[in-house]
Amino acid sequence: MFRTPALVINFKTYLQATGKKGLELAKIAEKVAKDLGVEIIVAVQLADLRLIAENVEIPVYAQHIDPIKPGAHTGHVLPEAVKEAGASGTLLNHSEHRLRLDVLNEAIVRAKEVGLETLVCADTPATSAAVAALQPSAVAIEPPELIGTGIPVSKAKPEVVTNTVAKIRRIDEHIPILTGAGITAGDDVARALELGTQGVLVASAIVKAKDWEAKIRELAKPLVKKL
Amino acid sequence: MFRTPALVINFKTYLQATGKKGLELAKIAEKVAKDLGVEIIVAVQLADLRLIAENVEIPVYAQHIDPIKPGAHTGHVLPEAVKEAGASGTLLNHSEHRLRLDVLNEAIVRAKEVGLETLVCADTPATSAAVAALQPSAVAIEPPELIGTGIPVSKAKPEVVTNTVAKIRRIDEHIPILTGAGITAGDDVARALELGTQGVLVASAIVKAKDWEAKIRELAKPLVKKL
Amino acid sequence: MFRTPALVINFKTYLQATGKKGLELAKIAEKVAKDLGVEIIVAVQLADLRLIAENVEIPVYAQHIDPIKPGAHTGHVLPEAVKEAGASGTLLNHSEHRLRLDVLNEAIVRAKEVGLETLVCADTPATSAAVAALQPSAVAIEPPELIGTGIPVSKAKPEVVTNTVAKIRRIDEHIPILTGAGITAGDDVARALELGTQGVLVASAIVKAKDWEAKIRELAKPLVKKL
Amino acid sequence: MFRTPALVINFKTYLQATGKKGLELAKIAEKVAKDLGVEIIVAVQLADLRLIAENVEIPVYAQHIDPIKPGAHTGHVLPEAVKEAGASGTLLNHSEHRLRLDVLNEAIVRAKEVGLETLVCADTPATSAAVAALQPSAVAIEPPELIGTGIPVSKAKPEVVTNTVAKIRRIDEHIPILTGAGITAGDDVARALELGTQGVLVASAIVKAKDWEAKIRELAKPLVKKL
Repeated sequence: MFRTPALVINFKTYLQATGKKGLELAKIAEKVAKDLGVEIIVAVQLADLRLIAENVEIPVYAQHIDPIKPGAHTGHVLPEAVKEAGASGTLLNHSEHRLRLDVLNEAIVRAKEVGLETLVCADTPATSAAVAALQPSAVAIEPPELIGTGIPVSKAKPEVVTNTVAKIRRIDEHIPILTGAGITAGDDVARALELGTQGVLVASAIVKAKDWEAKIRELAKPLVKKL
Repeated sequence: MFRTPALVINFKTYLQATGKKGLELAKIAEKVAKDLGVEIIVAVQLADLRLIAENVEIPVYAQHIDPIKPGAHTGHVLPEAVKEAGASGTLLNHSEHRLRLDVLNEAIVRAKEVGLETLVCADTPATSAAVAALQPSAVAIEPPELIGTGIPVSKAKPEVVTNTVAKIRRIDEHIPILTGAGITAGDDVARALELGTQGVLVASAIVKAKDWEAKIRELAKPLVKKL
Repeated sequence: MFRTPALVINFKTYLQATGKKGLELAKIAEKVAKDLGVEIIVAVQLADLRLIAENVEIPVYAQHIDPIKPGAHTGHVLPEAVKEAGASGTLLNHSEHRLRLDVLNEAIVRAKEVGLETLVCADTPATSAAVAALQPSAVAIEPPELIGTGIPVSKAKPEVVTNTVAKIRRIDEHIPILTGAGITAGDDVARALELGTQGVLVASAIVKAKDWEAKIRELAKPLVKKL
Repeated sequence: MFRTPALVINFKTYLQATGKKGLELAKIAEKVAKDLGVEIIVAVQLADLRLIAENVEIPVYAQHIDPIKPGAHTGHVLPEAVKEAGASGTLLNHSEHRLRLDVLNEAIVRAKEVGLETLVCADTPATSAAVAALQPSAVAIEPPELIGTGIPVSKAKPEVVTNTVAKIRRIDEHIPILTGAGITAGDDVARALELGTQGVLVASAIVKAKDWEAKIRELAKPLVKKL
């Protein structure tokens, strides 16, 4: 069950969010989530997943899983291992880790089998609709050219978001849709909700912020009004 | 520093070696290593790396790292994160996770930068020589058609091992070479040493053994005589 | 414009259909197409594309294009080059050449830009629906486990075909759907049409047939009745 | 047999060198090769390979082959098809089409089986040495950061070239080595020869030149003195 509205924080492989610093960031996210009563999810590096999942009560996601079954798959990410380490879900198909269509579909199927939510990223309205046809837990629309720029898609290309919502809604009336790429301020989040999406996917704006708590609080606040 | 002779146990993504069971297996490997005074390395899943590295004193390896620098690399394996989680090295280019030549080279370079050993697999004498030219910590020759078969390369295709040793030694006189694929019994290990390699890389024969300790002891014993 | 019903013959990289033999096979396909007045498409190797396209009047497809623009892309397949060589379309995402979702989408977009039809393969009803959301010229459902087996999907797994048709029709009422995998006899083609698809995608049953003309005629005949 | 010194012209997927324009460029290369009596090789797009190979007498290379055997490999490049279309060799592992180490090795083996020369690119002295260990027909060192820049590696990073030569010569005394990346003027070619390499690999400097013949002649002339 993917609860909305949601703020998903992608730790990527930033050094500021690696290892014990990653745990620290996750704990601040947990604090804000409890204070405001909103859904905040952290998507963390695999090497840090267990450490973080054992120490916070908010949902912890992997950043990727492979659609493999237990066995001889050296160096790949077993869904069961991710689940046992404490994850409640996983990102899939992020612009920095795109997947083959068949692999993406199998990864969603495997995630359901082991009880992991799937938040699947897509780059255009067309691919977002394609993703929705695969019935993941949620879809995130992220025009890759805006990722990490600080130029929010919700302002720079609102039509990408509204076209995505329109296309997905013809295929699935209820699946949660998140807005990603360039989300930097509380305003961007409010705008994302107005455009018909149910939350945001954010990375550098939070991870690189000088005051993690203040930034998370700023981005989470617009979700409160929406509850 | 890759100490030899060595027994490297690859946990792959076997369920028998995932999560807490993986820790149990690693602890048995540690016990045998201490009892016999031989080098035993465990190569574990990323999600279990910290758990295992924090609880055993033998070297713990990742099964793969990506040659990335800290930053925007969602879903990839940051060498720094693997190091901080407690790994002392990594497998690379296993037959179940082959790498592009340039990526493999960069991964070796990055591993050195962060202080991780690299044990690089190869499928033929020619590719083993190519790998040696990249100067990793050690090379493992594993004909993929024998992996997981229980037919030891050291008996079925000894000329693959000796050709590999010959080709590598022309490029690097000292780099440790391991024999892998189908290693199942103590005899296979002894034969691998006789053929001029400095240890073995084993997965299913140990992970799927009914008595882990007995099997590890059997495979580690031939290394003692060699010390 | 993808005309239906259609018989698409995939030459793959069979030696029997390489080079001048490929041209011979294409000429026989052309003969049957004219005789029966049905749509037969040949999907040929890139190295043979121009030779075949210059010498037959039926549609000649590439087996793959890359979603690149003219420029520095050594070793990749430029849509413009394929078009100039005489192709009228391309297969995409065949089970032997699966694509990333974003790459598949871009390839469809690029194909439209240069005037190439796109016949996109998929392995399950879910991925077929996803493909339909990308609006290619046509979709082919091919369960990979049946490809090359001689066990026709239309008989062994008719529910895969009907589920695919149902899922796609909710997204696109008109897009042509082909049945592939294991199609060997005229009966299989008739059954594929009964199940609601508009043609078939065939490879080994034709390429490896002793009498090419007889086999193509057998598989093309059920399409005649459908006109 | 890879004749040296050599000028290899990579047509990439530039529109200026696609289809009939590609043939035109190849004919000019042939003219200069005959006039000066030097070895000029053209590496062309697959869709144009037969057209060009049938109409010029200089060696025509593919830009890539896959290490497959005849059979079910839709969309891949069969070495036999490339050979039958008239190629005498192939580029491999270009920076725009990097290969897995095992795949590269198999591609070299397959090329030898069908009688195709292999010119394998590499990005560093270390990977160049690794490539030499695989025993292709020739190696090209091309630091990717200089490709297409007009800044010749032979001037900007001569130590990359000399280190490459040193490392390769320890493994193979005779294999031809080419210098690539940023080669723009006759001087760059002369310098490449002085640094101990046996020719150059050039793309944009020729393909984008206003006067193809003049530019090819300029770059080929330093090879004459070397004969």
